[in-house]
Amino acid sequence: MQLCRFNDDRLGLVQGNDVIDVTAAIKILPAYSYPLPTHDLLIANLAAVCAEVRRLVSSESGLARHALADLKLLSPVANPGKVVAAPVNYLKHLQEAREDQAIHHKNEIGEIQRVGVFLKATSSIEGASAGITIARPDRRNDHEIELVAVIGKAGRHIPAANALEHVAGYCVGLDMTVRGPEERSMRKSPDGYTVLGPYLTTADEMTDVTHLDLLLTVNGEVRQRANTRDLIMNVAALIEFASSFYTLHPGDIVMTGTPEGVSQVFPGDRLTAEITGLGRMVVDIHSD
Amino acid sequence: MQLCRFNDDRLGLVQGNDVIDVTAAIKILPAYSYPLPTHDLLIANLAAVCAEVRRLVSSESGLARHALADLKLLSPVANPGKVVAAPVNYLKHLQEAREDQAIHHKNEIGEIQRVGVFLKATSSIEGASAGITIARPDRRNDHEIELVAVIGKAGRHIPAANALEHVAGYCVGLDMTVRGPEERSMRKSPDGYTVLGPYLTTADEMTDVTHLDLLLTVNGEVRQRANTRDLIMNVAALIEFASSFYTLHPGDIVMTGTPEGVSQVFPGDRLTAEITGLGRMVVDIHSD
Repeated sequence: MQLCRFNDDRLGLVQGNDVIDVTAAIKILPAYSYPLPTHDLLIANLAAVCAEVRRLVSSESGLARHALADLKLLSPVANPGKVVAAPVNYLKHLQEAREDQAIHHKNEIGEIQRVGVFLKATSSIEGASAGITIARPDRRNDHEIELVAVIGKAGRHIPAANALEHVAGYCVGLDMTVRGPEERSMRKSPDGYTVLGPYLTTADEMTDVTHLDLLLTVNGEVRQRANTRDLIMNVAALIEFASSFYTLHPGDIVMTGTPEGVSQVFPGDRLTAEITGLGRMVVDIHSD
Repeated sequence: MQLCRFNDDRLGLVQGNDVIDVTAAIKILPAYSYPLPTHDLLIANLAAVCAEVRRLVSSESGLARHALADLKLLSPVANPGKVVAAPVNYLKHLQEAREDQAIHHKNEIGEIQRVGVFLKATSSIEGASAGITIARPDRRNDHEIELVAVIGKAGRHIPAANALEHVAGYCVGLDMTVRGPEERSMRKSPDGYTVLGPYLTTADEMTDVTHLDLLLTVNGEVRQRANTRDLIMNVAALIEFASSFYTLHPGDIVMTGTPEGVSQVFPGDRLTAEITGLGRMVVDIHSD
């Protein structure tokens, strides 16, 4: 199943180029008062929500239908507790980063096993339609397309062999980056610098995420073209690694790192980012 | 006003060694359904909650009273959106870190202006009474006492001159740390490695946070003794710096960095951490 969030917090079932409004399915989620849960409610109850979506679509005749292209797409996950992201996790990007002073800023570029995964602020999350406002025009700001896994089931010390059982679904991600000397968790966390979309594809739809094509264009020109087979640490290995330090919770986002071809973006640019089976998102760059 | 959260999500007004149960004040906060707000509700409505606490205490005669020492203290902020933390931010700790290979692990220890602030996972937050479970017994795990500011009012590009207007209150923090080569946002984010407490002291109670004594003991022995006057970047400067990258939201936590004297902790250790005007918390170290 492919689910989008759109317009004013509506829920949609994606069917090709169309979206059926299934917002009514959200009603099965409980209401809360302070203190609020610290995980994502929809993801934690995804099976029940999907069942309700199926029931609605088969039994209700008056559901609104929209063209996907007409909708304002929001982040498919509304309330992630954390965004875990991989630094250089493709060998060719590691090579590219080591060769370019404007990327590495004299910081040591280690392999992921040494550098570890890092965190991005949840306040940096946006959907595809918000566009990206350049936060630090005094710096180089780069695009980084990434395969994103959304955690569905909590766990710590998750072995790689079982890791994919903890994934609720996948989407396309842009790990936008301000270059500079500071640690990644600061430079990659400006508002809007974590773009998730265009929608969530549930894990049961993805039989093998280790051989997916990634494609990012800027103004129609190909900048990043790669395949997840070249990941140094794949989704399962990243979940094992991250969960050896902390618990992953439903709705937590795992960004798997970007391949080679990162480059600077400027206000007025239009990015497209797509991954096999997960859709294509169009993202505009704005000035502050 | 000093407010604690205790036992099963109750709210308490701290009066010396006593706590008056003012949980009823939480009723003024609205209930929410999915998607949930991404900031802390109590902190965003702190003035109204404090007014209701005052009303309750002056008009209700049956409020329960407890000894502070008898309560299970929870994190005074339940739903922070992010935890922003300063790396080496005291000159003597910078010197100590540069001299000790077990602390710096061959990573460059820069000053905070170059390294930037980093993020800790919100899933790492606990109150004082939970204790700390050593997450990686294969590594050195250190205590770091820190002055913590809690953001009350959202803002981006906040000038230092106005920054304290964005602070709702303060508390004591322990930025527990697994030593190793990985980036801070991973090593400092195990479950329970961000201890906040013992309670929240509202900003109006703190006339000057630039001259506060910090004291941390392990099993009664003094390990860290310092004063916030020696901060390289004080609270106001940190808020200016962090908000030059991203928006700070109500409930966001700003950990100001630790002074010299960090050292390893072991299961069975008992830590005390106190800061002038903010109280003293007792935190036990447990094995996994």
